[in-house]
Amino acid sequence: MGSLGPYQRKHKITVVGSGNWGCAIAKIVAENAASNSDIFEKKVEMWVFEETVEIPKDSPNYDPANPGPEKLTHVINRVHENVKYLPGIKLPANLHANPSLEDAVKDSTILVFNLPHQFIVKTCESIKGKILPYARGISCIKGVDVNEHGINLFSETIGKTLGIYCGALSGANIANEVAKEKWSETTVAYDPPHLDSKAPSLQPSPSGSQVDLVQFEHKDVSGNLSNVKLQALPSEYPPIDHNVLKQVFHRPYFHVRVVSDVAGVSISGALKNVVALAAGFVEGMGWGDNAKAAVMRVGLMEMVRFGDKFFGATIDQRTFTDESAGVADLITSSSGGRNFRCAKLSVERNQPIEQIEKDELNGQSLQGTLTAAEVNSFLKNQGQEEDFPLFTAVYRILQGTMQVAEIPSYIER
Amino acid sequence: MGSLGPYQRKHKITVVGSGNWGCAIAKIVAENAASNSDIFEKKVEMWVFEETVEIPKDSPNYDPANPGPEKLTHVINRVHENVKYLPGIKLPANLHANPSLEDAVKDSTILVFNLPHQFIVKTCESIKGKILPYARGISCIKGVDVNEHGINLFSETIGKTLGIYCGALSGANIANEVAKEKWSETTVAYDPPHLDSKAPSLQPSPSGSQVDLVQFEHKDVSGNLSNVKLQALPSEYPPIDHNVLKQVFHRPYFHVRVVSDVAGVSISGALKNVVALAAGFVEGMGWGDNAKAAVMRVGLMEMVRFGDKFFGATIDQRTFTDESAGVADLITSSSGGRNFRCAKLSVERNQPIEQIEKDELNGQSLQGTLTAAEVNSFLKNQGQEEDFPLFTAVYRILQGTMQVAEIPSYIER
Repeated sequence: MGSLGPYQRKHKITVVGSGNWGCAIAKIVAENAASNSDIFEKKVEMWVFEETVEIPKDSPNYDPANPGPEKLTHVINRVHENVKYLPGIKLPANLHANPSLEDAVKDSTILVFNLPHQFIVKTCESIKGKILPYARGISCIKGVDVNEHGINLFSETIGKTLGIYCGALSGANIANEVAKEKWSETTVAYDPPHLDSKAPSLQPSPSGSQVDLVQFEHKDVSGNLSNVKLQALPSEYPPIDHNVLKQVFHRPYFHVRVVSDVAGVSISGALKNVVALAAGFVEGMGWGDNAKAAVMRVGLMEMVRFGDKFFGATIDQRTFTDESAGVADLITSSSGGRNFRCAKLSVERNQPIEQIEKDELNGQSLQGTLTAAEVNSFLKNQGQEEDFPLFTAVYRILQGTMQVAEIPSYIER
Repeated sequence: MGSLGPYQRKHKITVVGSGNWGCAIAKIVAENAASNSDIFEKKVEMWVFEETVEIPKDSPNYDPANPGPEKLTHVINRVHENVKYLPGIKLPANLHANPSLEDAVKDSTILVFNLPHQFIVKTCESIKGKILPYARGISCIKGVDVNEHGINLFSETIGKTLGIYCGALSGANIANEVAKEKWSETTVAYDPPHLDSKAPSLQPSPSGSQVDLVQFEHKDVSGNLSNVKLQALPSEYPPIDHNVLKQVFHRPYFHVRVVSDVAGVSISGALKNVVALAAGFVEGMGWGDNAKAAVMRVGLMEMVRFGDKFFGATIDQRTFTDESAGVADLITSSSGGRNFRCAKLSVERNQPIEQIEKDELNGQSLQGTLTAAEVNSFLKNQGQEEDFPLFTAVYRILQGTMQVAEIPSYIER
């Protein structure tokens, strides 16, 4: 046990989700919990949606005497490998796979959400009221939920459903490469209301001790006001600040910068896929590296403009231009990402992108085409299509109402 | 002849230099002079260092009856092609190749400099006092002149030598692709002192008419004060402003943004080559697209920091993060540029980069290795090596005193 310093309690961390990105992040968090034992409980919980698996015969963990099938949590806890979703990667022994969501989250002050976005609401509703009321969350779920009326951040959906504050993590990261400890960077965004600077009303906490309960008006990114009650973290814990979050996620092979702009980090993760489609179209035309860099730059500036117009002062343009979640993720996605590759092939083969998607992605679907449509519907509703000519061009090309060759003249100004 | 509008005189443009980039820019300028005949003289002069050439036999302009040799200016003016430096590209008929530098520049209000940097001083000194005293310049020469004591911009060297104001043009541009009208973008930077806002002293001009002569204190990018006398443009000409410069350079296939930050545009063009070396090293290691994007992002931020530390308020961070001369040129250079390719090969073949340079570049030399050494010498002199860990790492790797594998830990913070 490390020294507790001035604090009597340590943070317990739970990762909610155990796909390949979930396990890659859980591996990092568990490594850091073990090496920062002064502030974190060593044991890290990971909620695993239970299923029965067979260890593949070519796995070093395959045992002919016990060929299975076996429960996935048992396999993870026994051989420290998620043989189904992140095969070949050794997980830390202090990472505990837990099939019970409720049990996995119940004592944790730091909840890391890393599951497919369609499961967020259901998952959060099932643990509402069953977590520590002063827990804090970080969403590793990429992108945002755009519809014609506005934009919802997944971190806000989580926060509102659970009544806690939730930040976000996003960057130029491919799960398998991070799991293999290939060096990359990421951005963590975290900006909770300053509970300590407000006059708190003392209320009995669920556990009986006195904690601060702060009720404040919260304006979400779409400008909607809501009353949010947030409980201050008891003073026995080290405060959850940028420094502590860096200790949760930063590794020698996974460099973390912590910023305050949750909306910017989240929106970048969605919009960069639209830009990657444009880069793929241009690459497919064979226009060369300068044209590709030009379309990426124009796209980056439309991301900045989008943030500025629809989120105003709540967003920092430097999140797009300076951070891993912004420019670096844009570069990676426009170099070899799935949206880029399919857009390129659709030009080269002169086929609709849906056909490429069918032929190349084994039943998976592109995020960028969906986002392009959602963003266009939102922009149309705001009467702003013309102010985002690249986003609009991408949408129209996908619809077949514009040619890729028209991009330069359409975005010319 | 177009309408002169409220102005009695039109701008005459001269391009000084006729290599492949010189001719590509001259082609653009001449196209624009022809199509904006209300403000520009149609005929554009291009100074050509005279030499005797033979038209290659496979050229459509080869005439067996007149096989040459012939003077290069004659060939250009006769067949409108620079058969030696930009073969296969039709130059506009209103572009006049002139072997006399003095004659080419003598009546021009807009001078576009596009020649190898080692010829700048000599060329400018030979026309000192022989140009219109109120002419304005644009330097298309990439990079800056760094030594251990400071940084000189080529545009400032030109401006000081000739006693005129000179801006800069830089972007993600490869001469041959621009010449082929493949779409790209560029950045023009122009920010002359506001002559009209100062109280001018009326002085007789060399041509006898009254013009404004403004003497003001000029602080160059290294902080040195000098007295510069600039002559205001006579009011018979349309003012040379961002709008007019856009009309000089913008084409449907060459999109121009005009900014005010000459230092930022120039420094980007030099420092991005150091970052491209780092990207090449990482690519050579096979670390994947995320690592490459990370090193590019870190490099971009060191460019911003470099501008901020050594140029302060005279530089705008957005030049690096938003403009073609910044982020886009960085992306292009780190995708397939020469510095990137040689750095990648040096890791893959485990050979010093000088060896790769010798084997791969046909006697040409890398800009990035030179800049890395110059920048390091400057940083060392300022005691700032540790604040620019990526630039320092690149230099040390080139020197053989650091391994590429050490980059992530060396830049970790």
